[in-house]
Amino acid sequence: MKRGILFIALCCLMPLLVWPANKNLKYVEASSLTLVGKAMPTPANVYHRVDVEKYSDMPKHVKNLFTYSAGLAVSFKTNSPTVVARWTTEGKRVMGNMTPIAQRGLDLYMYSDDGWMPVGVGTPTAGKTEHECCLVKNLKSGEHRFLLYLPLFDEITSLEIGVDSAAVITAEPSPFRHTILIYGSSILHGASASRAGLAYPARMARNTGFNFVNFGLSGSGKMEPAVANMLKDVRADAFVLDCMPNPLPEEITERTQYLVKTIREHHPGVPIILVETFMREDGYSDQQMHERCIRQSEAFIEQYELLKKEGVKDIYLIRDNHAIGTDHEGSIDGTHPNDLGFDRLVRQYQPQIMKILKRYGIR
Amino acid sequence: MKRGILFIALCCLMPLLVWPANKNLKYVEASSLTLVGKAMPTPANVYHRVDVEKYSDMPKHVKNLFTYSAGLAVSFKTNSPTVVARWTTEGKRVMGNMTPIAQRGLDLYMYSDDGWMPVGVGTPTAGKTEHECCLVKNLKSGEHRFLLYLPLFDEITSLEIGVDSAAVITAEPSPFRHTILIYGSSILHGASASRAGLAYPARMARNTGFNFVNFGLSGSGKMEPAVANMLKDVRADAFVLDCMPNPLPEEITERTQYLVKTIREHHPGVPIILVETFMREDGYSDQQMHERCIRQSEAFIEQYELLKKEGVKDIYLIRDNHAIGTDHEGSIDGTHPNDLGFDRLVRQYQPQIMKILKRYGIR
Repeated sequence: MKRGILFIALCCLMPLLVWPANKNLKYVEASSLTLVGKAMPTPANVYHRVDVEKYSDMPKHVKNLFTYSAGLAVSFKTNSPTVVARWTTEGKRVMGNMTPIAQRGLDLYMYSDDGWMPVGVGTPTAGKTEHECCLVKNLKSGEHRFLLYLPLFDEITSLEIGVDSAAVITAEPSPFRHTILIYGSSILHGASASRAGLAYPARMARNTGFNFVNFGLSGSGKMEPAVANMLKDVRADAFVLDCMPNPLPEEITERTQYLVKTIREHHPGVPIILVETFMREDGYSDQQMHERCIRQSEAFIEQYELLKKEGVKDIYLIRDNHAIGTDHEGSIDGTHPNDLGFDRLVRQYQPQIMKILKRYGIR
Repeated sequence: MKRGILFIALCCLMPLLVWPANKNLKYVEASSLTLVGKAMPTPANVYHRVDVEKYSDMPKHVKNLFTYSAGLAVSFKTNSPTVVARWTTEGKRVMGNMTPIAQRGLDLYMYSDDGWMPVGVGTPTAGKTEHECCLVKNLKSGEHRFLLYLPLFDEITSLEIGVDSAAVITAEPSPFRHTILIYGSSILHGASASRAGLAYPARMARNTGFNFVNFGLSGSGKMEPAVANMLKDVRADAFVLDCMPNPLPEEITERTQYLVKTIREHHPGVPIILVETFMREDGYSDQQMHERCIRQSEAFIEQYELLKKEGVKDIYLIRDNHAIGTDHEGSIDGTHPNDLGFDRLVRQYQPQIMKILKRYGIR
């Protein structure tokens, strides 16, 4: 009898013990706030990067990857001391070289006296597509501005942000100006930052105040003509091409001219910056990879010089001067930088990119 | 009919297409090679860190975590151009803030003209406990020395290293001298390095040539008396206590004296270095965490000063001077450093630790 009463009492208490106490929270659709990092409307899903129905002739892998929310962030402000999130992802395959937080989780930054400061992450539920997580709590009273970075390597199908029921949450304008579109490989995409806000375009955006748009395509930044054609329609103040690691040397030779000339023709006067990626870390041990990296680099530089010789204007080349460091510790797997490698890469590339942009009055 | 023939032909070809071509490889038990980073024999499983049967009165969580292979590495040499691995893990729960490679994968270093260089990782198979992976291939001919770091956050139950069938693989002595035992929290344990070789004791070992032994216990480095008693039996040239983040302030006050005095009594003349961890990153936004960090630090410093006042000899304190940096980007989740944070932490702690060790002739 006593046990029965205890059981009933426990059942009554359970809802109070379960976090979060939903009755004290209210949720808003993130899509009703400001989405940062977009380069075009995407009617099928606001969290896609490219309208993959419209550009249906792009390769299948490319279209799939453009549905991932890499580089997107939600800008809002609230006076809630607690911020939580509920979100769903498609559940793409688990990646060995990414944390679940970076792959399909969330990364919250708050604007502080020190600038943008990470204040909490959304850890996804392992093996599930529905996730719920408290991002930050016990904040100082007052209104704060936030940027919530979305998953790097999954498609996000819904996102709600929860705040205390008595608090106010509203859209905040994008904190970033101009549009600097970067097209490229998995390194650009964010492999292998430990969380989304540490992907290098996100870091450069917070550092500079410029809107660096992430068109990274893990393993598939191969400069196909259909992708070049899609870029015709993107309004940007500058284009950065960081795609060298993905195409074969022969593909670099075949495709660079069309990619650069297509952008040049459709966006006259806008700088196009080609970024070399010289030696993958595993090229220091794997002799075949070493050879491949050299051939890719030679093909890339050759194409750049050909374009210059032909008089294509406003194109620039940034050489890779051991961008992720010389101690061999800047990569997780011989291919992708870790946060240490990305930190070094940003220190090397950002000033060079900014110097070029400055010449065009982009400041 | 044609389809039938095609099917049979494909079935015959399949074994040739499946990697690795096992007939060209031979495997050795890693336990027959040299295991680096051990502080005691562990009869139940050579890849445990502590004999958890012998020290059965330690808390359950502590015993479980000491079965994880954090900090252990296999030392060997081979003239094989390819190195592969087959291994099994217990399959502990997926961690949101770790890459699968760091949690239950492998991390291979090769000795080169530049010193120890990472040359490949073993990516575990998602959702499985049996894993197989090529670690490195196409190496320059000749004999090379290797260190293979084991999973940080799982128990490894078997490990075989595969090389070309015509190659020779033999045990290589540990490349590290002395034993510097570090006891502590998840940060020491390796959360959240991107791969096992980037956990900070592993980095310091390669930097200095000293054998830094990882007794990190994720969330459970709480200085319990039973753990202090286990440390009586560990022969070490120095003890580093980096456990401040885990115990409550009250536990720090209750337990520090017994831990330090037990080590002092059983290892006379050996330096004991207490490491402060001051402010967690989330303490900059979460007011309650801020308060807790201050109280932990006050309790820890108070205990150190009490020990000094009592005349306990050969004890040292390393203060936390923003060890993971001041830009707030050195952590994945507000608690655990990422590779960038660890790089900064090593730069701050290593010279201070080495200076103390030098006084004791440990060089």
